[in-house]
Amino acid sequence: MTNTAQQNDLANAIRSLSMDAVEKANSGHPGLPMGCADIATVLFTKVMKFDPADSKWADRDRFILSAGHGSMLLYSSLYLLGYEDMTIEQVKNFRQLGSKTAGHPEYHFAQGIETTTGPLGQGLGNSVGFAVAEAKLAAEFGADIVDHHTWVLAGDGCLMEGISQEAIALAGHLKLNKLTVIWDNNSITIDGAVSNSDSTDQIARFHAVQWNTIEIDGHDQDAIEKALLDAKKSDKPTLIAAKTTIGFGAPKKAGTEKVHGAPLGAEELAGAKAALGITYPAFEIPSEILATWRAAGTRSQNIRGEWQSRLAAHADKAEFERRMKGDLPAAFAPAMDAFKKKLIEDKPKVATRKSSQMALDIINAVLPETQGGSADLTHSNLTNTKEMIPFQADNHAGRYMMYGIREHEMASAMNGIALHGGLIPYSGTFMVFTDYARPAIRLAALMELRSIYVMTHDSIGLGEDGPTHQPVEHLTALRAIPNLLVFRPADAVETLECWQLALESTSAPSILALSRQNLPTVRTEYTAENKSAKGAYILSGDRDSDAVIFATGSEVAIALEAQTMLDELHIKSRVVSVPSMELFAQQSQEYQDEIIGKGHARVAIEAGIKMSWDHILGRKGRFVGMHSFGASGPIDALYEHFGITAKAVVEAVTAQL
Amino acid sequence: MTNTAQQNDLANAIRSLSMDAVEKANSGHPGLPMGCADIATVLFTKVMKFDPADSKWADRDRFILSAGHGSMLLYSSLYLLGYEDMTIEQVKNFRQLGSKTAGHPEYHFAQGIETTTGPLGQGLGNSVGFAVAEAKLAAEFGADIVDHHTWVLAGDGCLMEGISQEAIALAGHLKLNKLTVIWDNNSITIDGAVSNSDSTDQIARFHAVQWNTIEIDGHDQDAIEKALLDAKKSDKPTLIAAKTTIGFGAPKKAGTEKVHGAPLGAEELAGAKAALGITYPAFEIPSEILATWRAAGTRSQNIRGEWQSRLAAHADKAEFERRMKGDLPAAFAPAMDAFKKKLIEDKPKVATRKSSQMALDIINAVLPETQGGSADLTHSNLTNTKEMIPFQADNHAGRYMMYGIREHEMASAMNGIALHGGLIPYSGTFMVFTDYARPAIRLAALMELRSIYVMTHDSIGLGEDGPTHQPVEHLTALRAIPNLLVFRPADAVETLECWQLALESTSAPSILALSRQNLPTVRTEYTAENKSAKGAYILSGDRDSDAVIFATGSEVAIALEAQTMLDELHIKSRVVSVPSMELFAQQSQEYQDEIIGKGHARVAIEAGIKMSWDHILGRKGRFVGMHSFGASGPIDALYEHFGITAKAVVEAVTAQL
Repeated sequence: MTNTAQQNDLANAIRSLSMDAVEKANSGHPGLPMGCADIATVLFTKVMKFDPADSKWADRDRFILSAGHGSMLLYSSLYLLGYEDMTIEQVKNFRQLGSKTAGHPEYHFAQGIETTTGPLGQGLGNSVGFAVAEAKLAAEFGADIVDHHTWVLAGDGCLMEGISQEAIALAGHLKLNKLTVIWDNNSITIDGAVSNSDSTDQIARFHAVQWNTIEIDGHDQDAIEKALLDAKKSDKPTLIAAKTTIGFGAPKKAGTEKVHGAPLGAEELAGAKAALGITYPAFEIPSEILATWRAAGTRSQNIRGEWQSRLAAHADKAEFERRMKGDLPAAFAPAMDAFKKKLIEDKPKVATRKSSQMALDIINAVLPETQGGSADLTHSNLTNTKEMIPFQADNHAGRYMMYGIREHEMASAMNGIALHGGLIPYSGTFMVFTDYARPAIRLAALMELRSIYVMTHDSIGLGEDGPTHQPVEHLTALRAIPNLLVFRPADAVETLECWQLALESTSAPSILALSRQNLPTVRTEYTAENKSAKGAYILSGDRDSDAVIFATGSEVAIALEAQTMLDELHIKSRVVSVPSMELFAQQSQEYQDEIIGKGHARVAIEAGIKMSWDHILGRKGRFVGMHSFGASGPIDALYEHFGITAKAVVEAVTAQL
Repeated sequence: MTNTAQQNDLANAIRSLSMDAVEKANSGHPGLPMGCADIATVLFTKVMKFDPADSKWADRDRFILSAGHGSMLLYSSLYLLGYEDMTIEQVKNFRQLGSKTAGHPEYHFAQGIETTTGPLGQGLGNSVGFAVAEAKLAAEFGADIVDHHTWVLAGDGCLMEGISQEAIALAGHLKLNKLTVIWDNNSITIDGAVSNSDSTDQIARFHAVQWNTIEIDGHDQDAIEKALLDAKKSDKPTLIAAKTTIGFGAPKKAGTEKVHGAPLGAEELAGAKAALGITYPAFEIPSEILATWRAAGTRSQNIRGEWQSRLAAHADKAEFERRMKGDLPAAFAPAMDAFKKKLIEDKPKVATRKSSQMALDIINAVLPETQGGSADLTHSNLTNTKEMIPFQADNHAGRYMMYGIREHEMASAMNGIALHGGLIPYSGTFMVFTDYARPAIRLAALMELRSIYVMTHDSIGLGEDGPTHQPVEHLTALRAIPNLLVFRPADAVETLECWQLALESTSAPSILALSRQNLPTVRTEYTAENKSAKGAYILSGDRDSDAVIFATGSEVAIALEAQTMLDELHIKSRVVSVPSMELFAQQSQEYQDEIIGKGHARVAIEAGIKMSWDHILGRKGRFVGMHSFGASGPIDALYEHFGITAKAVVEAVTAQL
């Protein structure tokens, strides 16, 4: 180690704030901030391009703390760099309710937090999306206004999670050379030595997926700087394996799991400060050290100024700004409306996955910002359209992501793309594999991102592939996630409407649950109003009927069939299509009560489980749907076998009258 | 290629049956069976140890078709080998409702299907558990009765999924040398060439995680045999990279994605048969070819006979048989009962994760078959007990799995352990990370396995770690999975009861949702009856009260507090503890109605979302719980902030009276 006194002072400022904040909160993770302080110091004061005065500057470098438990590393650095909202009071309020300094970094909470991390591997997963977005926008708008790097700090936990392999394999394949991952190689996990549970040669592993690798002493600031600058020159993504000591400086606990996730305690803290030469009081960074940090914080101001001049002169300035803002173009809504008219005229009988592709033909033509894709099911998900060429290593202008058989990374990369800005990610897999992507979908909901998941083969209606591929509980399980819009459109018209809602939803991700099987057009009259926007609406029948039949997606046509059968029995019923329970729940109580009815026989039909319908059905209403896993067989046999039929709906109605 | 005519005949029998079955079903995946027929032929007729006459023989080799879509490879082989229940009629009924030959291999459906596969990567994930179980039982009972291999056939899809990295890293670390993975290296995925989405050097990748690797021509049966036999000799797990042609023999479609997942069509099928020299009619394997296969099927009979003799003479015969049967020992129930008495005497105020560890102290002492573990959160999950030493490369006798930060593989390996038999797997992580493990948990439920997940930190009660770590929708999302028992015990007594139920549940996996925070003992009177077995029961108060308060886990004590407050208002209420909604749903309608009540004010309190309570609450009942993601802060502040308080329960009751 050859650090100068000043280098150590800068790093110790991070260590000091981090130790003190964890101690004050009596909760948190001091080990990583202490171990990675040298890395953060070099990265933030020497290498990264950003400006605290404009934390959303489009061409800033992005830093992602994939090892989110080390949040104090980030908060300390943001404070030291002079981010306005990261005051010393916030640092002192670490992990307190309402503070910006949550246990793990939370997107939206403070400037300079690029993504919410904590669930291991997710930041790394996001980072690939950030790098994709940078590369795509650079290809589109030119390197004079888009030319920045994505820096990730990841720990052993991140690298053990399966998503890490999906992420690095994809990044290596796509040659995302502006992505650098710094591995906090401290040889410690919560349960002790990494060697208790892992024998991976990480360097060899990253080489195997076509990464550049550099090994350094993670406490040697000159070596760190050289490595980071070398990484910037690589034509591949780079792993910097930085050997560090967790809890660096702590006299007894450094290098052990004891310093990972608990306060040091008064004695160890005092010992650490003594060992590190920290003589100033808690939370009081000496003015010359703070001044050096603050000066470093402003060092990219000129670069930003030059960039702004270039942008001002750029031919596509307005479009670039629109894209980064996330506004949809004026042409969007009319294009959707025109196509709705055409659909109502044509009344196609196609699967909603096909309806989705038809909608995408229109959408992708008017929204250059869509970045499509699939986890290797393109011709099943129908997420591709004519103008979309693949995003590949040799063509970063491509609009279509071939994510490979990597559902989890697909969703996590989509989050990164959405977080970066300038693009709207959508991509597909089979509905049942939302389980594989679930941790990333949850984070999209938590972060309020516009990620759009095209989930086809949404029920037993997929037929012969059987129970492993048939979603049964998935609609319910997804509806359970707060702030996630789950759409299950009934026909081509609703599919178009739901696509429009998903694209217009700037603070919640969307799932489009789509059928494999063909469905008739049930919305046969044009309305300017997007009826799906209310989440549930009367599709057929009157308000003053005896029974209400609720249905979604492929079961709406069955509900209409049941309605006809009930008519013959002189039982008046109405069919309510429920494309989105979440949007329905946002309507006025009055509207909801009106739709649900009072004293009516109530039946819901959906080729999934009942749970998410109970709030509508109450204890008396009946459900026609699945009560178990599915089975392998032709679709008609399955619907009959599981009793999801118009006849069953009729019986469920008459049993209540 | 140097195959003899007979070698080709044997492999072509698989190809022929597979092509014909897919064609007849007009659905399915011919590409893999055609491409891997040579591999399967050698594996089944020359290398593997098994006996169709005793398909559950404890010391058989296990074959796992991780690429489950290639199910016809397995069904064809099982028929050819002479498994009694795999008749030619079953082969002809491929993918039909009620047949044993489902779209993907389904455990329980036919002899020789060792696990349900289809969701990619899961079979590979399971296989590590199979190999762990073999190694552990060999260490325990000796190699004279436990000495078999686990063989996996995996495709590019399996190897791209993140779980594959978790699986191979764990297997390499643990030196599971009796595990061999054959990679069907056909360079094709559904969307086209593997090179569209992946540039991984798989050989280097497996070396990086300490595997032995062998590369062969996957159509050269002699090379295949040598590789398989070499793999058996390795002191590490082995990857055999077998270069194959997908759809081998199909004149136009071989080597392309067109042959992956659709029938060949009459013309291509005829062309393939001509090219392969198959002259016999569909489904009619010539007698001499069938005879050769059948003879191969019986070739391990002597080995099994000798094994039975060794078992008969084995000192631990009875124990081994009990273990493989999955019966609990007679000492189990009395030990649980005795500890229940003690708990009711002691009335500990501890977190239910601690109660769980206390229960495990008793359980692990009487059940040598438990194989515990954690995904690197041992001291948080409290899944370890004194007698448990780690299962490591140098000690396969260990009872504690250090799974590393690999929740998905943990759950998938647990499935493998449960499927192998002889051990009962339990293991822990944080409840929120059930999302990471969800695909494997679902398969445990589908396969009816006794896997027990110890999921601690089960609500906002975990405090400062914040929303990324706080389960909110997870109880609901897990309750949504068919055939999964979700337990949320209220105190040490219920925790013990739930552990007993989980261990006695031989056809459904269990989740134990456990608190981080301390909870008082609320079950203060001893009953011989396991009250948790009914899923919900009156904990306090009378049947003829005005209000019913339902609660689980950490909220039961709050419900009791509310009851006291209601008493003061002269409102009679009863508190119903609901340790398991699934078990409650299995009770008589009478019992359920009695517990839920009629015309009562109903309130449920649970630190999660409302959805799974609606069937009990109906449209009028009120819910006290979460309506959004959580937040970072100390526990008391969080409960107050989110309004999960006794006061809120009282208000929810009085609002209904």
